[in-house]
Amino acid sequence: MKKILVLGAGLSSSSLIKYLLDHSDEYNRGIRVGDMSLEIAQKKVNNHKNGEVFEFDVLNEQQRIKEIQNADVVISMLPARFHHLVAENCVEHNKNMITASYVSKEIKALNEKAKEKGLLLLNEIGVDPGIDHMSAMKVIDEIKSKGGKILAFKSSTGGLVAPEFDNNPWNYKFTWNPRNVVVAGQSVAQYIDHGKYKYVPYSQLFRRVERMTVLDAGEFEMYPNRDSLSYRETYGLENIPTILRGTLRRPGYSEAWNVFVQIGATDDTYKIENSENLTYRDFINSFLPYNLKDPVELKLCNYVKIDIESEIMSRLKWLGIFEETKIGMPNASPAQILQKLLEEKWALDSEDKDMIVMQHQFEYRLNGKNKLITSSLVVKGKDQVHTAMSITVGIPVAIATKLFLKGVIKQKGVIVPTMKDVYEPVLKELEEYGIVFIEEETDLD
Amino acid sequence: MKKILVLGAGLSSSSLIKYLLDHSDEYNRGIRVGDMSLEIAQKKVNNHKNGEVFEFDVLNEQQRIKEIQNADVVISMLPARFHHLVAENCVEHNKNMITASYVSKEIKALNEKAKEKGLLLLNEIGVDPGIDHMSAMKVIDEIKSKGGKILAFKSSTGGLVAPEFDNNPWNYKFTWNPRNVVVAGQSVAQYIDHGKYKYVPYSQLFRRVERMTVLDAGEFEMYPNRDSLSYRETYGLENIPTILRGTLRRPGYSEAWNVFVQIGATDDTYKIENSENLTYRDFINSFLPYNLKDPVELKLCNYVKIDIESEIMSRLKWLGIFEETKIGMPNASPAQILQKLLEEKWALDSEDKDMIVMQHQFEYRLNGKNKLITSSLVVKGKDQVHTAMSITVGIPVAIATKLFLKGVIKQKGVIVPTMKDVYEPVLKELEEYGIVFIEEETDLD
Repeated sequence: MKKILVLGAGLSSSSLIKYLLDHSDEYNRGIRVGDMSLEIAQKKVNNHKNGEVFEFDVLNEQQRIKEIQNADVVISMLPARFHHLVAENCVEHNKNMITASYVSKEIKALNEKAKEKGLLLLNEIGVDPGIDHMSAMKVIDEIKSKGGKILAFKSSTGGLVAPEFDNNPWNYKFTWNPRNVVVAGQSVAQYIDHGKYKYVPYSQLFRRVERMTVLDAGEFEMYPNRDSLSYRETYGLENIPTILRGTLRRPGYSEAWNVFVQIGATDDTYKIENSENLTYRDFINSFLPYNLKDPVELKLCNYVKIDIESEIMSRLKWLGIFEETKIGMPNASPAQILQKLLEEKWALDSEDKDMIVMQHQFEYRLNGKNKLITSSLVVKGKDQVHTAMSITVGIPVAIATKLFLKGVIKQKGVIVPTMKDVYEPVLKELEEYGIVFIEEETDLD
Repeated sequence: MKKILVLGAGLSSSSLIKYLLDHSDEYNRGIRVGDMSLEIAQKKVNNHKNGEVFEFDVLNEQQRIKEIQNADVVISMLPARFHHLVAENCVEHNKNMITASYVSKEIKALNEKAKEKGLLLLNEIGVDPGIDHMSAMKVIDEIKSKGGKILAFKSSTGGLVAPEFDNNPWNYKFTWNPRNVVVAGQSVAQYIDHGKYKYVPYSQLFRRVERMTVLDAGEFEMYPNRDSLSYRETYGLENIPTILRGTLRRPGYSEAWNVFVQIGATDDTYKIENSENLTYRDFINSFLPYNLKDPVELKLCNYVKIDIESEIMSRLKWLGIFEETKIGMPNASPAQILQKLLEEKWALDSEDKDMIVMQHQFEYRLNGKNKLITSSLVVKGKDQVHTAMSITVGIPVAIATKLFLKGVIKQKGVIVPTMKDVYEPVLKELEEYGIVFIEEETDLD
C-alpha cells in the first residue's frame, strides 16, 4: 500500500487527517503521520487501520529523506519556515507535495525542476490563502466569461469566536496564533483605490477600517492587509483600478486596539526593563508622559484623546490593563507583555466554538451597467478539535490530495489553486463539508 | 619627522586639519591626510609645509596598514562603519587612534589588547558625542565633589541655521547629513522620569517635546533621543531618577514634522511604485484615503486633524508638498522622496552660517536645598568651510591629539572623554576657539 505522508499533526491538521483516513480505502493509500510529539500524532490517527504514526524531527535530514522516499504525496503542515526543506527533498526524490502555506521564494525556485520531472507542488490551498483564491477566481472567471470588466475587488477574512460564544466587549477571542494578532499590521499596507496607490503606515492602520455585513453573521469592520497589490497578478486582474484585501473584526475592535498601537504597547523590537516586577498598570504608565497628579486612566485618555466614559475605555478596562497585577514575565517586549495579558482574557472557554468569515466584493461593468457581486462564507467550528480554522485549512488540502491521486488535478510544477480545473472540483466537494459561498448580485446604477 | 595620519577630509575635517597644521611645529609632527578624493584632501591641506596628501581607499587593506605603520597617531574621520578596520590595524601595529564617533562593539573589544600595549583609543571626542560628555562631566564632578546629589539630568543638542540666516517658516536648514534628519527617531526613545521608565514610539515622538531657552539664541523645543539610559553608566549616574537626552529644533518644527510621521512620509522600508512619474501632490495623496470631492490639502487636514489656516499648514505648503511638480526619482522610498524635496527647500544659501546649540540641565540637592544648574553653549559657523559643525567636531579631536602628543593625556585603552584629566585641559583650550559653556545656577525651593 502506497503512503500519503503528513508532516505536522497540530491543530490545523485535525480535520485534514480525519478526511484522509476516512477516504483512505477510496484512493488506496496508507496515511503516515509524523510530528515532534508522537502523542499528538497518535491522538489524530486514533488507531485507524490505514494510519501510522512516527516521531518526526524536520531538522533530521536523513529521517526527512527516508520518509519522503517512502511516500508518493507529501503534505507539509509544518511551520512555514520548514516547507522549503521538505519541498527540496520532494523534488529531488520525485515526490509530489501539497501545503496550505504561501509560496516562498525558495519553493518558487523549484518550479522548472518540478515541471521537468512531472511533479505537482500545490501550495496555498488552506483557507487564507486557499479558499479565498478558489472562491474569488470562480467569480472572476464567471464575470470575465460573460464579457464583464472588473472595476473593484475587495476581499476580507477573519477568524473569530462564533456569535453564540461571543461574550466579551471586544467581541474577539484568540482562535489561532495569538502572537500574529498582537503584531498584525506592523509593516505598511499597500493597495489601489480608483487607480491611486495607497500606503497606510501602522500608526494609521486601525483608523482605516470599512464596515460590512456578512450574511446572518452580522456586522464587521475590515482593516487593510499588508499586501493587496500582488493579488493583481495572482488573479489576472493586472489593470484593476481598485483592489483591497483585509482582515475582519467586529465593529469597535479596531478603535480600541488602536490605543495599544498609538502608545507603543504592541512594539516587539525592544525589552522593557525589569518587566517581571512591573504591574500591567506600570506597563501602561511607561508609555505616558510623567505627571504627578493624574491617575493612569486619565493620563491615557488625555494622551490618546478618548473619553473616560467611552466604549473604548470599557474595552481597555475589561482587559485589566489598569490593574496592579504583576506581569511576572522577565525580559519581555511590550508585545510579549500585551500577549500574556490577552491570552488570559481572550482565551476560548472549553465549550466555545470559533468561526471563519470571508467576503469578496466584485464591482463590474457589463453591457453598460455597473453591478456588484458579493460572495460570502461563514463556517463555524464543530467542536474544540474540528474548529472552523482546522476544517477550512485542512479539508481543502485533503480534497486536493484525493483529487490529485484520482487524476482529477493534472497540473504540474509550483502552483496555487487559481486554475478552474483545480478550484472547481475542490469547491464542489467543500460544499459537502459546509463550506458554501453565498453569492448575491445587485445593480449599482 | 613623525606623522599624524588623518583619514577622511570631508566637511567635518576642515577645522581639524587646519588646527593640526597650525600647531604642527609645536608638537613636531607632519600631517598626512588621506581621502577618496585627492582634490578634497589638497584643498584642506592647502600646500602647508608640514602637510601631505594621498588618495585613500579604506577597503585597501595593504594601503591602510602601510599608512598606519608610518604614523604614530591615527585620526579616523571616515564614515563610522569603517572605524573598526582602522582601529584593529592600529592596535596590531602599536599605533594610537582618535575618533569623534561612538564606540562600536568591535572597538570596545580592543580595550584589553590596547591597554596591554599601552595604546590610547580615544573615541567620542567631537561635538555630540564629545563636547556634551566633557561639559556634562565637568558639572557632574563639581556637584559630586561638593557632596550634592543629582536628581535630574537633561541634555540636548541641535545643529541649526544661525538666527541671522533663519528665513523660512520651519526655522530649520540642513547643516549636516539630510538623511539622518529625515529618518531621525525611527526606533523607540527610552528614558527615565522621576524613577519611572518611559518608552516613546516613533508615532508619538514629535508630540513629546519640551520647551527651553538657550542664552541669547532664543527658544527651542527638544524631542527625546533614542537612548538616554546608557548615559547613566557613562556619566556615573547609575541611580539617577530622571535622565533625558534630546535633539533641539525651533518651536513649531516638531508639530509640523509630525504630520509627515503620522501619514507615513518618512518611511524608508519600501518603495513607492512609479515614483519618478508622480508629483509631490500625488505623493502626499498616496497616504490619504480615497475621496472624490476633497482637494489633497483638505483631505490631509481632516486626516491629521489640523486647521487649514494653521501654522502647521503654512509650513507644509511652503515646502511645496501640494504642488504638481514631478518627483523625477525612480524606485524611491517615501523617506527618499521627502529628502529630495527638503534638500531643495532646506539648503543653506551660499552665505548662510550654521549654529550648534547645547544645553545641560542638572537638578541637585545639597544641604537640604534643591538647585538647578544650566550649562549652555552656542557656537556659530565662521564661514562655509569652518562651520559650527566642523569646528565643534574637529577642534576637540585636534586638541586631544595635541594634548596626547604632549603627554598631557595619559589614559590608555578604549576610552571616551569623561575623565577629568582628559576633559579639563580640552575644555580649557576649547574656550580659545569660542566654545564656551555658560553656567547658571538657581534655587528651586
